[in-house]
Amino acid sequence: MTTSAENEWPRQVAILGVGLLGGSVALALRRALPQTRLVGFARSPEKRQYLSEQGIIDLPVATLPEACQQSDVVVVAAPVDRIAEMVVSAAESSPPDCLITDVGSTKHRIVSAVAEHLDAAKKFVPAHPIAGSEKSGPAHATDSLFDEKLVVLTPTETTEPKLLEKAHRFWRLTGGQTCEMTPSEHDTHLAAISHMPHLVSALVAKMAASEALPLAGTGWRDITRVAIGDPTLWTAICSENRTAIGGELERLADELGRLRQLLQDADDDALHRWLSKAKEIRELSP
Amino acid sequence: MTTSAENEWPRQVAILGVGLLGGSVALALRRALPQTRLVGFARSPEKRQYLSEQGIIDLPVATLPEACQQSDVVVVAAPVDRIAEMVVSAAESSPPDCLITDVGSTKHRIVSAVAEHLDAAKKFVPAHPIAGSEKSGPAHATDSLFDEKLVVLTPTETTEPKLLEKAHRFWRLTGGQTCEMTPSEHDTHLAAISHMPHLVSALVAKMAASEALPLAGTGWRDITRVAIGDPTLWTAICSENRTAIGGELERLADELGRLRQLLQDADDDALHRWLSKAKEIRELSP
Repeated sequence: MTTSAENEWPRQVAILGVGLLGGSVALALRRALPQTRLVGFARSPEKRQYLSEQGIIDLPVATLPEACQQSDVVVVAAPVDRIAEMVVSAAESSPPDCLITDVGSTKHRIVSAVAEHLDAAKKFVPAHPIAGSEKSGPAHATDSLFDEKLVVLTPTETTEPKLLEKAHRFWRLTGGQTCEMTPSEHDTHLAAISHMPHLVSALVAKMAASEALPLAGTGWRDITRVAIGDPTLWTAICSENRTAIGGELERLADELGRLRQLLQDADDDALHRWLSKAKEIRELSP
Repeated sequence: MTTSAENEWPRQVAILGVGLLGGSVALALRRALPQTRLVGFARSPEKRQYLSEQGIIDLPVATLPEACQQSDVVVVAAPVDRIAEMVVSAAESSPPDCLITDVGSTKHRIVSAVAEHLDAAKKFVPAHPIAGSEKSGPAHATDSLFDEKLVVLTPTETTEPKLLEKAHRFWRLTGGQTCEMTPSEHDTHLAAISHMPHLVSALVAKMAASEALPLAGTGWRDITRVAIGDPTLWTAICSENRTAIGGELERLADELGRLRQLLQDADDDALHRWLSKAKEIRELSP
C-alpha cells in the first residue's frame, strides 16, 4: 500500500452537477482512488438519494458552498452557460489551494468571464474531456468514459504552473490523456470537429419526412445519433461559440455548393475523387 | 421433418456477386434452408476458393451462365451500375420459371433498363434490402444481416403476381420484412434518407482539418462512419439517382441557410425549437 503524499491527493473532490460527465468523473476517481471522498452537489433530494444509493457519490449535499468547503478539487460539470458563475462561487467557498476545473465543450467565454474574478481565475484550470454520449444523466455514467480519451486543458498566461500540473494529474487519474491549447484554439477546432457536425446531424434528422423514415438504415441512424442530444445543452454551446460555429457553417455551405456542382455536371471522376478524399480523412480516425 | 413442395423451394440459388450483401444472402439462406444449394459466381479463382473454404457458397463457378442454368432464384448483388446487364444475362441462361432479384440501392434506372428486355423483365422482381455496412467483402457477411430489416420490392405493372409472391417468400427466408413501392417512390425516399445523408457524412469527414482531427469524439465518428464506404459503389449510386439526390441536396442547402440565419440572429429560442424538432424526429427511429 502506497502512502506517499502524492497518493493522498486529492482527499476530497466535489462534483458540481452529477450527470453523465460529472457521474463518470466520480466513478473514474473511485476506481483510481478508492479512499478519496466524493462530494456531489445536487439540488433535488431525490437525486441526492439516488447518487448515494447507486454508490456514485459518498456525500451528496444540497448547496454549492457545502460541496466546496473542504475539497481539494472542484469539478464543475454543468451546462456551458452556467459554468463561469459556478466556478466563481466555488472559488469563494473552497480552500486556498483548491483546483477548480470543468468539463465544458466551449472555453473562450467561460475563461473570459472567470478572468474578471481574480480569486476564481487563480484557482481555475479549464478542461474539456473529449468524451460523452447523446445520452444524459448519472444512470449512464461509467468509470471508463474517459479512458484513453483526450482531455484538453486551456490554461491562460496567468495560470500558475503548479496548478496546471495538478490539473494534468487530476485528469489523468480519470483515465484521460491530457493536452494543452489556448481557449480560442480549442473553440475553433471544436466548432469544426464537434459543434458544426452536431448541427449537421440534427439537420439530417430534421429533414427526414415521415414517409421516408421507415426506410432509414444503420447509416442514417449513425449520422443522426447525436441529434438525440439535449437541445438545451446544445443551444448553450451554440450561443457560447456562435462566431466559430457560424464560420464553420459558412464553410459547409461553400463545400456543399461545390458538391452540388459536381453532381450537376455529372462529373463522376471528380465525385469519385471527392468521395475517396473523404474516406481517406475518415480513416485517419479510429 | 417437413417435405411439402413449399419447403423444397428454392432448391438452388445463384448469387451473382458474393460480397457483403451477396454473402449475407447466402448465409441467411443456409440458416433457413440447409438443403438448398448455393451457387456463387466469382471471376477470381482465389475468391472461389475462399467462398468454398469459408462455407459461404456450396458451388463457386467462374461464369454467369453456369451459375444461373439450374437455379430457381438468381440474386444479383453487384454495384448498381452493373445490375441491369447482369439481370438480362441471367434471364438468358436461367430456367423459365426462375425468379431474378437484386439488392441495388437505386431502382428506377435498373427497372427501366431491364424493361427493354421482355424476357428479363418477366423474371425480374427488383429488391432493395435496407441493410448493409460501411464495410464490404464476404469476410463481413453474416447470416443475420437482414433479420427484421425492411426489404423493399419495386414491382412494375407488368410483374406477374405469382412471381411477386415468390419474391416476398424468398426475401422473408433471409429474415427480412418485405414491403412494396414503385421504383420512383423508392428512389425519392432513398435519396432523402440514405443517399443525401451519405454525401453529408462524407462532406463532414472531408472538411476535418488535420489539426482538429485528434479532437474528434464519438459524435464525429458516428456522423462520418459511412464515409468509409466504397467510393466506386457510391459514385454509381449518385449517378443512377442523380436527379433525386440533386433535389435533396438543394433542400439541404435551403435548410442550412435557415439554420445559419437562426445562429446569426442569435435567436436561441428558435434554435432550441429547431434542435428539439430534430431530436423528436430522430427518436422515431430505433
